[in-house]
Formats: sequence, C-alpha cells, structure tokens
Amino acid sequence: MSNHDTVQVALAELRQTAHAALSRAGCDEENAAAVAAVMMAADADGCASHGLFRLAGYLASLKSGKVDGKARPTVARLAPAVIQVDGHGGFAPLAMQAAHAALAPVAREQGVAAAALVNVHHFSALWVDIEPLIEAGLAAMSFTAYMPAVAPTGARKPFFGTNPMAFGWPRENGGTLIFDQASAAMARGEIMIAAREGHALPPGVGVDGAGNPTTDPAEILKGAQLPFGGYKGSSIAMMVELLAAGLIGQPFSFEAGNEDNKDGGPPRGGVFVLAFDPARFGDAAGWLKHSETFLQQLSGLDDVRLPGARRARNRARIAREGANLPAKLWQDAVNASKG
Amino acid sequence: MSNHDTVQVALAELRQTAHAALSRAGCDEENAAAVAAVMMAADADGCASHGLFRLAGYLASLKSGKVDGKARPTVARLAPAVIQVDGHGGFAPLAMQAAHAALAPVAREQGVAAAALVNVHHFSALWVDIEPLIEAGLAAMSFTAYMPAVAPTGARKPFFGTNPMAFGWPRENGGTLIFDQASAAMARGEIMIAAREGHALPPGVGVDGAGNPTTDPAEILKGAQLPFGGYKGSSIAMMVELLAAGLIGQPFSFEAGNEDNKDGGPPRGGVFVLAFDPARFGDAAGWLKHSETFLQQLSGLDDVRLPGARRARNRARIAREGANLPAKLWQDAVNASKG
Repeated sequence: MSNHDTVQVALAELRQTAHAALSRAGCDEENAAAVAAVMMAADADGCASHGLFRLAGYLASLKSGKVDGKARPTVARLAPAVIQVDGHGGFAPLAMQAAHAALAPVAREQGVAAAALVNVHHFSALWVDIEPLIEAGLAAMSFTAYMPAVAPTGARKPFFGTNPMAFGWPRENGGTLIFDQASAAMARGEIMIAAREGHALPPGVGVDGAGNPTTDPAEILKGAQLPFGGYKGSSIAMMVELLAAGLIGQPFSFEAGNEDNKDGGPPRGGVFVLAFDPARFGDAAGWLKHSETFLQQLSGLDDVRLPGARRARNRARIAREGANLPAKLWQDAVNASKG
Repeated sequence: MSNHDTVQVALAELRQTAHAALSRAGCDEENAAAVAAVMMAADADGCASHGLFRLAGYLASLKSGKVDGKARPTVARLAPAVIQVDGHGGFAPLAMQAAHAALAPVAREQGVAAAALVNVHHFSALWVDIEPLIEAGLAAMSFTAYMPAVAPTGARKPFFGTNPMAFGWPRENGGTLIFDQASAAMARGEIMIAAREGHALPPGVGVDGAGNPTTDPAEILKGAQLPFGGYKGSSIAMMVELLAAGLIGQPFSFEAGNEDNKDGGPPRGGVFVLAFDPARFGDAAGWLKHSETFLQQLSGLDDVRLPGARRARNRARIAREGANLPAKLWQDAVNASKG
C-alpha cells in the first residue's frame, strides 16, 4: 500500500468507524457521536484536513488522558447577550451543540449575542461549527486560537496559533455562505497533508526553524507558518487571540503550547462565537433579498467563486460516491475501531 | 510652491481652519466641530490620508448638496442589544458620537451590543471612530463599505469598496490597541496621496482599467485596487459588505457607487460597530492583566510592532511640533476657511 493509494468510503461507514474508534478510546456515546459527526461533515465536503485525518489526534488525546471523553458541557448565561459553555475538558463538538441550542434563541431575542466555549479541545473546521446557526437564519462569526504555529510579522518563531475565523450568512434558498480561513497563509492541516504526501508548498507559507523561507512542509511544521497577507493577516491573528482567549478567559496560543502535553491532539482552549439576527437590524423585510442581490452580482463577475462553492459541489458528489480517503488512513481507522 | 513643500501647522489651528471651512460650506456648529475633530485626530497621529487631506471631499459634498451639513442624528433601540443611529444624510462624525453615547452603556448591560449607523456619509479613519469606546474600557470592532474600488479575487473590475475593518482592545495603562485596515492591499487615501506626489506603488496594489497589473497609482485609481492577501482578503471585504450594508439595510458598495453623484466626497452608507464588555465574559478580574501578558510577549518578539505603535509615537511628537502638511493642502484649507 503506497502513500498514494486511496479508497472510497461511504459517509455512514466513515462515521460509524470513527464513532467506534472514539468509543474504544474512551468516549461515551454522546461525545463519540458528536466528534464523529464533525469529522464526517468535513470529509462529506471534501475538506480532508479536518475529516478522518484528525482521528489519530482525537484518539491520542483520549489515550494520553488529556481529554475527558465523557465530559458533559454546562451552560451559563453570563450577561443578557452572553452565553458561556464550559466543556469541562472534553472535545468541542458536544459543547458546540449546546452553544447552538442556547445561542440561537438569545441572538433572536437580543439581536446580537455571543457564546464563549471554554475548557474545550477544538480540532474541527469552524465552518462545521457555525453551519447550523446559518441554516437557522442567523449570521455568525467564530474564532479560535490554537498552539504556537505562526510567526507574527516581525518575528521568526511561532507565537500565534493558526487562528481561523469563520463568517456565515444565510442564503435565500435555505443554503449557506460560509468562509472559514486560517490567519496563516495556509491551514496547518493542509501543510500536514502536504508533508504526508511529500508535496512542496508555494513560497510565503512558512519559514524553517532558523526563520528562513522554505517550501518544504516538513521544515515549516518544525519552523513557523506565516500569516496571510503580511501584517494585516498578522493583525487578524492577534484579534483572534484576544477574542478567543483574552476576552473569554482562555489560554492564548503561547499558553496552550506551554501547558499542552504534545500528544498530537488538540490543546485546551476557547472558541468564540457571535450570532446576529438580521431581522433585528432595521431591515427585517428586505435584508435577505437585498443581500442575495449582492451575492448574485458578486458571483456573476468574471471568474469569481463564492466561498464554500467548491464544498457545495463536493457535497452532492461525495454523498453519492463516498469520501476518497488515503487507504492507510482508512485502514488505521478501521483498526482503531476494532482494536 | 512645489508639490513637495510642506508647512508645520499647530493642531488647534488645523482644527479651527477646518471648522471654519466646513461652516462656510454649510455645516452647522455641531457638525463642523465633529468633522473637524476627526480630521484633526487623524493628522494628530500622522495619519495624513484621513486628515485635512479629506477636507476638499467634505466641502465638495456640501457644495453639491449631497450631504446635509445641518443633519441631526436620531437614536433608536431596535433590540435589547442593537442600537440604530440614523444620520439623516449628514456626515458620520456626529452620528458616531451619538452611537458612542448610546452603545457603551448597552454593551455594559448586555455584554455585547451593536450600533448600526445608517444614512451617513463616512470619510474618516475607523480607528478614530472606535477609540473612545476602547478608552472607556470596551473592546470594539467596526466595519464600513464604500464605493466600488476593489476587484474581488477572480474579477477584473471594482466591486467591493476599500472596506476597512477596525478592532480595538483596552490596555492596562489606559491606552488603546487599535488596528484599522482596509480590505484592499493599500488604503485608497494612500494611493491618492501617491498619485498626488507621483510615487510608484509596490506590485499587488492594483490593476489598470483593463485589469492588468500596474504600479502607477493614477492608473490604479482609474482601474481597480486588489484585496490584501488574495482570496482571504477578498472574503473579508465580502464580510464587511454583508455587515455594513446587508445586515443593517444600507447600500452595498456597488449600490452606493450607482447612486453617488461623484462629487469626490463620501457616498451615503452605513457603519457597523460592535462593542464588548470584557468584564461580562467570565474573567472580570483577570482579563486585563491576562491580555496585557499576551501583548507584552508579542511586542517583545524580534522586530514586532503592535498596531498603532507608530501612531502613538507620532501623537506625542505632533502634539509638540504640529502636523506636517503639504503647503498647497494647507493653503487651500485656509482659503476655504476665508472664502
């Protein structure tokens, strides 16, 4: 079996296998189901870097005892427009489900509301996290820090996390417009996949351990990623730290890096989610059609593609054909599910 | 007098001159004072692109009748956490003052709150707009669209505005950390200044009218600016449109461009402001010291400069020395103030 062999796996089978592997490693039913669902959702859209590719990290952090696979999130209302969901050291997906249930009605009531997820181990794609809010007709943003991976503009060593932010907007047809982008020039998961597959990366993605530019993904993983767009992307990475850590009392990436046990799984940290009810901002009757006009014009320009358009096309195809996975990745998952 | 002659002007004189020119062109006292103050604030920090450089545009839009220099903003509470400030066709600064007064107590009460400024003509720097909120101990974000200036990734013609976003965070010493960055690779004001001064720009700032790359600022102003950071900056520009126009019922940049009279002044549009009270997010006792630790570490890395550090240094110097202005710009302002 070479590094390039792949297999087609039906999504239901992918989810069941992930679920079984998580259960064997110590997750209870609810956590195994929630974590397996977010991995499947990523692979279902062709987003390999956050799909079953993450299973090994989830399992490692259960086996090391860093993450409690049986944790139950608790919800508190800290202020009229602020929800806090404490994950009590579990994986983020169950806490995110609790956040959706609590946040959506508060956003409708208040116009805008925030959810602070704390003491969670977050390893999923942010677009998966906010999609249910967008499907419920809300606009939403989300932010999370990580462990040191990105050198701020002016620095040579990692300090910021990859620090993704996501933004989503409801479409008239019931669909969603969501972008989810790392503050790094490239998502760390994609660099990990390039390292696994032995691909060189474009210039500007990262530097080696001495702070010198390189296109070797393995050297970048040992050195530092760079922010997208120079100092402006670096500023956005800083903002993500202040929202997902400073504001909600969670570890900054440099703190998470210091306290993490380096088992390959996600560090303890926070996720910050904002939800807006567009019906409460002065254009209740018109906002959806108005924004649709904008998005239609935008998507009609030359070669413009709306964020998420590729995922939407993948979703229809992969639902029929199954996910295309590296054969070794799938075999490892099957093995882990059977022990 | 060459294009490169400059003069030193005391800030009080700059403000009085701007105030007098605005009054002569049709502003009432309150509007003239508020608009002059935001121009002075920009020049006071060495931010020439949003200082007295903007006076000609303000005056043109009064003279054309596009902007009502006597408009009085009105404030409505659309939802428990949502304020709307209607500028009734005036310049943004008076409406922004009303937004600050209304938003700060609501953010403290609700934890997070939003202000939607509508029917305003916005021409100032966003950092000036949110600084009072940060000085009041809140975190804040702000977004505004403009007129078509930036080609989305995949397009050849302007469609997005320059679409700045700002983010601010309070410092332990009572200072502020604020970044304010266009979604364009370069602020339009800086391109205008380069065109005036005849400087070439770096590659990647824009394209000419045929969609071809150029470093000539005059060609870019006739063609299109490019987003910073490729498709990720383009996504942020799209988000700014959806927040500052779609969400709050205001014109998207392409609509503002269609309805504007092209007098050189600011189009009618919206500004979206979010304020957070960090004391309501679960770490009331620790957030300020915790975030200060992060910022101290960050600013101590290699050659890292925190956003706004240059402005802060400028502010102390310019308060003593006055603003350094192009002599012709100053003479035009003096002439406009005397008629």
